[in-house]
Amino acid sequence: VVSISNDRFHAWYRVAGSQHEAFRKAKDICLEQTVEFPEELVPDGFIRDHVTGRIEDFRKAPRGAWETRISFACDTTGGEFSQLLNVLFGNISIKPGIRLERFELPLPLLKRFVGPRHGVKGLRRILKAPRRPLLCTAIKPMGLPPAKLAQLTFLFGLGGIDIVKDDHGLADQPFARFRDRVKLCTRAAREASRRTGHACLYAPNVSGPHREIVDRARLAWREGAGALLVAPGLAGFEVMQRLSRETRLPLLAHPAFLGTYVMSPDSGISHRALFGQIVRLAGADASIFPNFGGRFSFTKEECRSIASGCRDRMGHLRPILPSPGGGMGLSRVPEMQRFYGRDVLFLIGGGLFQDGPDVSANARRFREMVGG
Amino acid sequence: VVSISNDRFHAWYRVAGSQHEAFRKAKDICLEQTVEFPEELVPDGFIRDHVTGRIEDFRKAPRGAWETRISFACDTTGGEFSQLLNVLFGNISIKPGIRLERFELPLPLLKRFVGPRHGVKGLRRILKAPRRPLLCTAIKPMGLPPAKLAQLTFLFGLGGIDIVKDDHGLADQPFARFRDRVKLCTRAAREASRRTGHACLYAPNVSGPHREIVDRARLAWREGAGALLVAPGLAGFEVMQRLSRETRLPLLAHPAFLGTYVMSPDSGISHRALFGQIVRLAGADASIFPNFGGRFSFTKEECRSIASGCRDRMGHLRPILPSPGGGMGLSRVPEMQRFYGRDVLFLIGGGLFQDGPDVSANARRFREMVGG
Repeated sequence: VVSISNDRFHAWYRVAGSQHEAFRKAKDICLEQTVEFPEELVPDGFIRDHVTGRIEDFRKAPRGAWETRISFACDTTGGEFSQLLNVLFGNISIKPGIRLERFELPLPLLKRFVGPRHGVKGLRRILKAPRRPLLCTAIKPMGLPPAKLAQLTFLFGLGGIDIVKDDHGLADQPFARFRDRVKLCTRAAREASRRTGHACLYAPNVSGPHREIVDRARLAWREGAGALLVAPGLAGFEVMQRLSRETRLPLLAHPAFLGTYVMSPDSGISHRALFGQIVRLAGADASIFPNFGGRFSFTKEECRSIASGCRDRMGHLRPILPSPGGGMGLSRVPEMQRFYGRDVLFLIGGGLFQDGPDVSANARRFREMVGG
Repeated sequence: VVSISNDRFHAWYRVAGSQHEAFRKAKDICLEQTVEFPEELVPDGFIRDHVTGRIEDFRKAPRGAWETRISFACDTTGGEFSQLLNVLFGNISIKPGIRLERFELPLPLLKRFVGPRHGVKGLRRILKAPRRPLLCTAIKPMGLPPAKLAQLTFLFGLGGIDIVKDDHGLADQPFARFRDRVKLCTRAAREASRRTGHACLYAPNVSGPHREIVDRARLAWREGAGALLVAPGLAGFEVMQRLSRETRLPLLAHPAFLGTYVMSPDSGISHRALFGQIVRLAGADASIFPNFGGRFSFTKEECRSIASGCRDRMGHLRPILPSPGGGMGLSRVPEMQRFYGRDVLFLIGGGLFQDGPDVSANARRFREMVGG
């Protein structure tokens, strides 16, 4: 039998129920995620010994649950990202009481994935900002014409925002066509950069139809966009590797349509694994997520774990920027800075409009708060 | 301002909490899913009147919750499927206590989507099976070489299975490369058809990297595959419209990685909307989901609602086949037939191996049970 390697990768699951039930669920994960076959019929030899998952550890976890570490043959993924996700959590996403906490890939498998092309260091180099927190905002509201969105881009750039991104709801609507918006906003960001002497990257949202998404990314790149925004929950995680290869632009991952994965402590995927490990492995250079205390419901602990997933050692994969946002205002910046440290991309969208009508002045205050 | 139309589409949400809280959440959906902007700053006129969502109805729902119907301008979707999903459930997927129950699109928006190319009637025509339930099985377990998988395809076809699909875990692994598998299995299905005089379609799993997925579908089509299996949770919903356009092959949607959307009665998306409406709008001709009483946890009521979502009137969109599977055995067929009626694609995978070593004989029994 042909095999990439005998290597196995490891996944940690939180499993609910009594010890007996939980252990049965752990055994079930081993079959369900691989051979999907009645246990008694699994052929002896290669398939039983190598292809099926293997319980490597099983122990008590907090709050009446169990933690199990299961190993899978790297071969089962075929070295492909979507199939890795499938083995990690495909069918068991439909089974209650199983939560993917984290995973570790051995080097031969990890090397199949390019991961973030720029990461923290790359983005800092592009932005010529070696130490301070980086700043992001969004042009909005949906419904504004391209010229108005471009004007906002310019004003934010003038105020010193590093990355001005499309609101994630801007697609290719009749009131702001993608092509027109990208042309005007890239020009506006460039003009702001020229005036301030600081780089300002415009990041259009390219989430869209399967074929168009690549065309839009190429168009954006040709027009001089500085980064791309993509929502892997809508476009599929796989597209990020492709966009990174095709355009070499930094990628911001947006969490739209991904919320249900992290809504339950008993099932789904942990915040760290989803918004940290998976988004990073997929190729994002920054991972946008809702900050604690904003208009969403993530806890401090969950946000801290996302930051860990963005930064913790993961083979050759570059650390990326956690990008907390979602209903943040300027008053929260000092607290967020203490919480996240320097390697962070702060995202304040609507909040930058609330501090008075001069959005450039608001942006400037934002920039000053993080040490200019 | 340019506008496709003044039309609005409607979405029904179940909202948890007291009447006051729930109504606040409903108002929040209107902003969060469109302008994502502080209420007091939303510009008067076009944006406030047309672009933001609008509460059309708000009433008591069972189990201490509320149901609200919210309308959105069709313009907000730009006529694109991923942006439709984004408006329906993008950011609010991250907010607890909001569940998308169903939605209705007016004709001008619905017409932007091709939907299922074949549907129930088309598949029946291809299979020359005008009335009886249709039969599907999966070749497995993962780890078998292509020749063995092809042998199984042949034996199932000989027994009268209509669609022999890849197990959804078969991707492009070293032990069964996609190209080799497709070549051998299509040939096996053809040979079985020739022998029995009945059509037998082989459906390879094309879920994979963003670019490869289209290449694999084209290869499968050239080799003579009869259908395609795709997991939109892994590949993105958008890809189905593309595959349908590129290959014109019938598409089977697999639920892998989508389970968390339907795990909670309080949040996520209803079974009917996800595995019925959304999968159908995306272009699937059959929607695979775990049957009640199998090794997954869907209830009878949930399965019934999926069948409704597959069949209920939805403009010009063809009705599609609900395809219940997941730990089913032959003994369940009579009950399932009473439950689902004739327009169904029964999926028995592992169960067809459990009824004795002669899988052709098992398949024949399956076929006889539905009236041969």
